[in-house]
Amino acid sequence: MSNIRHALSVKREDDFAAWYQAAIAEGQMAEESGVRGCMVIKPWGYGIWERIQRLLDDRIKATGHDNAYFPLFIPLSNFEREADHVEGFAKEMAVVTHHRLIADGKGGLIPDPDAKLEEPLVVRPTSETIIGDAMARWVQSWRDLPLKLNQWANVVRWEMRTRMFLRTSEFLWQEGHTAHATAEEAKDHTLTMLEVYRAMAEEDLALPVIAGEKPEHERFPGAVETWSIEAMMQDGKALQAGTSHYLGTNFAKASGIKYQAQEGGEQFAHTTSWGVSTRLIGGIIMTHGDDDGLRVPPRIAPWQVVILPMLRGNDDDAALIDYCDGLRATLAGQHALGEPVRVLLDTKPGKPAQKRWDWVRKGAPVIVEVGGRDMENGVVTLIRRDQLWDMETGKLNAQAPTREIAGQTIPGVLGDIQQALFIEAAERRDANIATGIDSWDGVVEFFASNGKYPGWVEVQWAKPTGDALEQVVEKLKDQKLTVRNVPRDATPANGTCIFTGEPATERVYVARAY
Amino acid sequence: MSNIRHALSVKREDDFAAWYQAAIAEGQMAEESGVRGCMVIKPWGYGIWERIQRLLDDRIKATGHDNAYFPLFIPLSNFEREADHVEGFAKEMAVVTHHRLIADGKGGLIPDPDAKLEEPLVVRPTSETIIGDAMARWVQSWRDLPLKLNQWANVVRWEMRTRMFLRTSEFLWQEGHTAHATAEEAKDHTLTMLEVYRAMAEEDLALPVIAGEKPEHERFPGAVETWSIEAMMQDGKALQAGTSHYLGTNFAKASGIKYQAQEGGEQFAHTTSWGVSTRLIGGIIMTHGDDDGLRVPPRIAPWQVVILPMLRGNDDDAALIDYCDGLRATLAGQHALGEPVRVLLDTKPGKPAQKRWDWVRKGAPVIVEVGGRDMENGVVTLIRRDQLWDMETGKLNAQAPTREIAGQTIPGVLGDIQQALFIEAAERRDANIATGIDSWDGVVEFFASNGKYPGWVEVQWAKPTGDALEQVVEKLKDQKLTVRNVPRDATPANGTCIFTGEPATERVYVARAY
Ligand SMILES: [Zn+2]
Ligand SMILES: [Zn+2]
Repeated sequence: MSNIRHALSVKREDDFAAWYQAAIAEGQMAEESGVRGCMVIKPWGYGIWERIQRLLDDRIKATGHDNAYFPLFIPLSNFEREADHVEGFAKEMAVVTHHRLIADGKGGLIPDPDAKLEEPLVVRPTSETIIGDAMARWVQSWRDLPLKLNQWANVVRWEMRTRMFLRTSEFLWQEGHTAHATAEEAKDHTLTMLEVYRAMAEEDLALPVIAGEKPEHERFPGAVETWSIEAMMQDGKALQAGTSHYLGTNFAKASGIKYQAQEGGEQFAHTTSWGVSTRLIGGIIMTHGDDDGLRVPPRIAPWQVVILPMLRGNDDDAALIDYCDGLRATLAGQHALGEPVRVLLDTKPGKPAQKRWDWVRKGAPVIVEVGGRDMENGVVTLIRRDQLWDMETGKLNAQAPTREIAGQTIPGVLGDIQQALFIEAAERRDANIATGIDSWDGVVEFFASNGKYPGWVEVQWAKPTGDALEQVVEKLKDQKLTVRNVPRDATPANGTCIFTGEPATERVYVARAY
Repeated sequence: MSNIRHALSVKREDDFAAWYQAAIAEGQMAEESGVRGCMVIKPWGYGIWERIQRLLDDRIKATGHDNAYFPLFIPLSNFEREADHVEGFAKEMAVVTHHRLIADGKGGLIPDPDAKLEEPLVVRPTSETIIGDAMARWVQSWRDLPLKLNQWANVVRWEMRTRMFLRTSEFLWQEGHTAHATAEEAKDHTLTMLEVYRAMAEEDLALPVIAGEKPEHERFPGAVETWSIEAMMQDGKALQAGTSHYLGTNFAKASGIKYQAQEGGEQFAHTTSWGVSTRLIGGIIMTHGDDDGLRVPPRIAPWQVVILPMLRGNDDDAALIDYCDGLRATLAGQHALGEPVRVLLDTKPGKPAQKRWDWVRKGAPVIVEVGGRDMENGVVTLIRRDQLWDMETGKLNAQAPTREIAGQTIPGVLGDIQQALFIEAAERRDANIATGIDSWDGVVEFFASNGKYPGWVEVQWAKPTGDALEQVVEKLKDQKLTVRNVPRDATPANGTCIFTGEPATERVYVARAY
């Protein structure tokens, strides 16, 4: 393996953070925009987001939600209403104070002092309050429930330190908001959406996740229950990839979401909210990427197969393109993973080797190169991005099926790659979760002695609350650790709490996190 | 017809503006948000936008564009660069000046004076400059051209007087931006996208439009050519429904989009931009709506067929739902207009008559009501929204096919409705364009004597420019008239200019406009 010259300038094992930046830049996913904290999502990165959107939107609609659109701007007074202790309130948000630019008389522009807004507007950091207002208008009777809405939107949270896809001032997300007649129905729905996220992550993104409940101190402000899906990155850190909240009647009371019950009398609705964002793309990169760049799971790859004719700028090119187009047409007429195969015949000008490596770094699942000799022999050169190297020889692991065989087998290969990426990630994750550590000292020792990328530990605790929990959180924080979640499907606790020695009630994951 | 009791409270002929508001409110399309100038797009209205997006996005991708995403915020200095006469510059835009809210010590919140931005940020009114910056980074060589990008996004233009969908402070749109090596290629592309818009409007939205070039004074600032599609509303006013601009090298020079030419030497790229917005939805309402509410063309209807079992809250309901679900399943398994039929079995609680009229006002193309007696007789009650009334009897125009016949014929009926709506709108438009008026007095006379909703006139002119054009514009303005466009496919001029008496060179449309 040492003789392999990888396509990225940085290796994961040397500097994971630098590798992540290189994978994004060289995979043509995104770049700095010049606007503080905001990125430009380039076509390949945005294409992946479009695929995630399409697949998740289908799942959200299949569970009975309608999409709607709510204003970008939220009046400042909505936040006064929300902040139950306004005195301590300080939030990083973009605030619009003026509605006009004028010339400053010195050749520049300034916000027009005569166009100051009476009430400043905040660029939405989330749409809880404005959707709550709409729900209060739309819900009158039990007949209007459940009300199940979703919004795809951009949101802004002013961030001091940003990292592409993981933490940016502006990001793209979906936020679901539902209102129900009963607590039971709302709690069920919170878990239904958690399961939608789990299935989307594992089936579409090939991202193995642990679905579970966040401990009390990690709840969304105002939530009664907060659930998450947590994924392990290749540096062993956890990434919270999606959350689903049961909000009780707290938000219904703040917004006035009330209904006439079927049995008479006025009741507050029980609400939920849940969201995932472009952060998922960061998770995909850090889970599937390797030292040659991205590896995009076929289900969410904008192009699943890229065909590269090795053009020479002469008269033979037309026949070569024609030969390639035959394969393209064959593949486009077939299905893989339940959808028509997305195949690109890339005839853009450029050196063949450079084009090949561009697609390797972008992580197209299957790359098919075709030179003049391939055409003469009736074959193509096929590269699986997830099996790029022949480990024995240190050379590219290319196959040479006939064009006909390639046309028949590639759809199945795409399914194989989707599965292989998931299995690889799940096996790595499972191999990097330590179980059986039964003391706090054991936890400290584990993270001190397991190298740069130690992974997670599963421990047992007695579910501390209030002050006791705060002490645990402080203890963890000193080690740069966090509690991730309490898995939904864990085997019951059978030991003692590593913090108090009491009989344990739950298993929880402890990890460093993004 | 006089004995028909229509579903809306206002008729088009009585007060078109009030009718428009009623159609939006009672058709559950959108509502005021409480945030100045911003609307909430409700699920039915947003569902129509999603359909438009999906169909137009397919067309945009089929013509070789990639979607990408650029920041919401644009540094104020970008506008200084753009405004070539900064002194006269005054633009209504939302300006972000602070990045934090804090408590004011009196129980309220204020923008934190310590968190004032060094450089204010403007919420994008369009992304010309920020995409231009990216193109300057991405284009180096002729090999990088053409660069064809599109963005779906929200934009903000602070509006003093707003009208839902037609003019709102925040709106949703797509903006295409492309860079080309030559003027010829860029001009061709401007027209390619104009044609994409024409086809989308006519084929998907059933909106007949005139594609043509805007006169000089209506050009987008900085554009060399501006083209538009123009539709006629039922009050005879014109609605500009989409624009496509050839920008020459003006924007390339401002942003520095340069490339190494294949034959050597550095050249500026030629760029285009083009966009349509949620304004299209206003156009659909004002073209197809009637005194019973909306009529949504099947291609863009979120639900094309709504099946309403007349539930009675007793034991018979289950069998009725089952009977209806049989029809739903039959239809869902078929295609109409090239896509799977979108059919909803609406079992929400509510009075059957109210539910029927809700769907009439929302404009679902086909409504199928099924009562217990229908089920006994093996039939369903079928209502075509575009042929709601039997004009002779003044009663609802319902048919009673067997369930089997309904399952077989409805897909074809959807195609018929799509076509019928287009033909109705095209015939009305053509009947309301006056030709042959050969003097300015004739134009004034036409608009003075043709009632509330006079329509358009086609006149001939000698294509004035500069001062001469300004005089024409003033003359028109006095009559509240505007020049719409010079149609691409007009018969050549053969008369005299109505403004100057010179030999005419072009035919143009003159109309009142939104
Ligand atoms: Zn509190
Ligand atoms: Zn100028």
